[in-house]
Amino acid sequence: MSLIVQKFGGSSVSDAEHIFNVANIITKAYSQGNDVIAVVSAQGDTTDELIEKANEINSHASKREMDVLLSTGEQISIALLSMAIEKLGFPVVSLLGWQAGFNTDTDYGNARIEKVCADRIRKELDKKNIVIVAGFQGINKYGDITTMGRGGSDTSAVATAAVMHADVCKIYTDVEGVYTADPRRVPSAKKLDVISYDEMLELATLGAQVLNNRSVEMAKKYNVEVEVLSSMKNTPGTIVKEAARLEKMLISGVTTDNNVARISVINIPDKPGFAFKLFSKLASKDINVDIILQSIGRNPTKDISFTVTENQLEDAIKILEKYIEPIDNSKILYDKNVAKVSIVGTGMETHVGIASMMFEALFEAQINIHMISTSEIKVSVLISSDDVDTALNAIHKKFFSSIE
Amino acid sequence: MSLIVQKFGGSSVSDAEHIFNVANIITKAYSQGNDVIAVVSAQGDTTDELIEKANEINSHASKREMDVLLSTGEQISIALLSMAIEKLGFPVVSLLGWQAGFNTDTDYGNARIEKVCADRIRKELDKKNIVIVAGFQGINKYGDITTMGRGGSDTSAVATAAVMHADVCKIYTDVEGVYTADPRRVPSAKKLDVISYDEMLELATLGAQVLNNRSVEMAKKYNVEVEVLSSMKNTPGTIVKEAARLEKMLISGVTTDNNVARISVINIPDKPGFAFKLFSKLASKDINVDIILQSIGRNPTKDISFTVTENQLEDAIKILEKYIEPIDNSKILYDKNVAKVSIVGTGMETHVGIASMMFEALFEAQINIHMISTSEIKVSVLISSDDVDTALNAIHKKFFSSIE
Repeated sequence: MSLIVQKFGGSSVSDAEHIFNVANIITKAYSQGNDVIAVVSAQGDTTDELIEKANEINSHASKREMDVLLSTGEQISIALLSMAIEKLGFPVVSLLGWQAGFNTDTDYGNARIEKVCADRIRKELDKKNIVIVAGFQGINKYGDITTMGRGGSDTSAVATAAVMHADVCKIYTDVEGVYTADPRRVPSAKKLDVISYDEMLELATLGAQVLNNRSVEMAKKYNVEVEVLSSMKNTPGTIVKEAARLEKMLISGVTTDNNVARISVINIPDKPGFAFKLFSKLASKDINVDIILQSIGRNPTKDISFTVTENQLEDAIKILEKYIEPIDNSKILYDKNVAKVSIVGTGMETHVGIASMMFEALFEAQINIHMISTSEIKVSVLISSDDVDTALNAIHKKFFSSIE
Repeated sequence: MSLIVQKFGGSSVSDAEHIFNVANIITKAYSQGNDVIAVVSAQGDTTDELIEKANEINSHASKREMDVLLSTGEQISIALLSMAIEKLGFPVVSLLGWQAGFNTDTDYGNARIEKVCADRIRKELDKKNIVIVAGFQGINKYGDITTMGRGGSDTSAVATAAVMHADVCKIYTDVEGVYTADPRRVPSAKKLDVISYDEMLELATLGAQVLNNRSVEMAKKYNVEVEVLSSMKNTPGTIVKEAARLEKMLISGVTTDNNVARISVINIPDKPGFAFKLFSKLASKDINVDIILQSIGRNPTKDISFTVTENQLEDAIKILEKYIEPIDNSKILYDKNVAKVSIVGTGMETHVGIASMMFEALFEAQINIHMISTSEIKVSVLISSDDVDTALNAIHKKFFSSIE
């Protein structure tokens, strides 16, 4: 007998038919003799509909009240799912975030789990109940409802699996697992059987959007084995765990990110501390800077280029204009027509020449590289967004054609 | 400075416009220097929509899960109302049933408040916050959400007023107060300035549907002054309090109830205990028997007639058929084409002849009386439902024409 945590996203419980599909998955695991805890998100577009309702009243409503409103989404889905499981004749109980003991900090709308007090969950499992838990939501030290931001249900599920020492945390979704590239754009993309936490983290950060980033960090921290799989197909998914590597694969995947813009500040003083001040200015306004490229100083001036997400471009420019203005000859340039292509894989730690394989693929496809950034398990390049699909396929072919 | 509890029903918060109307009423009272606690129901038809959602999944869902589902209704309305009050620039906080400390018994779907632990409400009032409380819902000893059944928000409001020693509990509704008869059917019906708890109780029981019965019982028990008034018109309503009586009015009102059916069991043995056993059989199946008429025994048999609510008629007949079957010659008859007309007033306690004034009015209108039932402050008659509007107007005219 195992203890299994399952997590179902909003599209998996969007209507009665989907809810019964999920109820069948849960009760099947229970019938096989397992203890089952299922963490559930709000139905389909519920969250967006609730936000719209709030905006009709007050588009600057407090985050506290937004959380009171938004947390009704999962409350509805756990009740309906429990009713479906009752209909199938199984013992079940639903628990809200505060009942399940998800203690969070006080950052409404983006709260982090500080502790899971799972006494109630344990008590219900002891009674042989299937336990349905509302994801995404918790309670803070004031006794108020908090929500964890988009994707928070993944974190709720992994945290539950961690504190309960579950054997596995199965994240059911609308894809069959983690792929070597987006299968809609790279027809030869392959589903990975296994991927490491670090690789998954890089992929999540890079916008692969299969698993919420915080949840992967937490899974890594508490060594929770996570499986990403489809709620509609009865096939094995991708297992995320420590230090997993398939011998013949040098990298785990190729991803792209179009939500990126390049800013160049040219002719700035070539003096110590200037770049530091510039980036701390941006950081203080919550603007994330990604790839940074600094020209070698040609006294008295130098150039700095860096990327930000496209929706933060405008804010970043405003801050820079205020800061750069007094300096003669310096200029701010920007380019939205860029995209980031990245390869991720722990194989880079042990194999040399992986970055150059990527550059070779791009060269063969006649694609110009604007900027390069590397980490221990990732190489990212900035290219023109017109080239992004060509680049994605060229790189994927270079690394995966041998195992096709 | 006073402490005011206000209660707003579902139609008062049905959309953004109504919500801002309510927000204006609340903030006006707050601006006048009062502490304000507002108890709110679910928006418009939310509860019915949620029930429909549940029925799609499981029409026999557990009451516990129904309560998890239904309690989202008020959660949405308190959040939206708080957002509207924030928009108007006032300090506000919303509290769910469990946060406001509504401790109930474990009777899901029809829970009774056992205790209000109002520490959190007090703390928020001390911080000069307007406090918006979700009506209808509470928490039981297991830490589970309970709901109080239809009209439960009235009870939440009165309980809050009782425990907080509020100066008044204002129940805002879509009528302007309590009337001497239904103004849609009796054009000359008058709004009462004052009515006693007992009269209000009889009216509530008789289906006047202005105030929930439990809430009036609680108001009486804790001597809470309640005002029933319109949320759309800025006029005084009807005050419900102890032993209030307008000199010139003999009765407070006339009500009718069409949801009634008469059952007659004829030719039953004229032996002690038979009627007792028959009614205890019905009571054990939760069938409420109202007016009872027993013929004088003509040894060896007698007849018993009584009324039940129309929707319990079928169940009652089934139980009776099972019970009566073995007895020779006895027969069960029923009539759905009946209605109950009642007059209510504490004046009856001190004035004689009030019942006969009612009978006189019915005689003058040529209406046949099937059955009669009286209490200290109420007289009810059962008549043909075809006559009910004629009877209502005739009786109202008899008692109130002098003060028209």
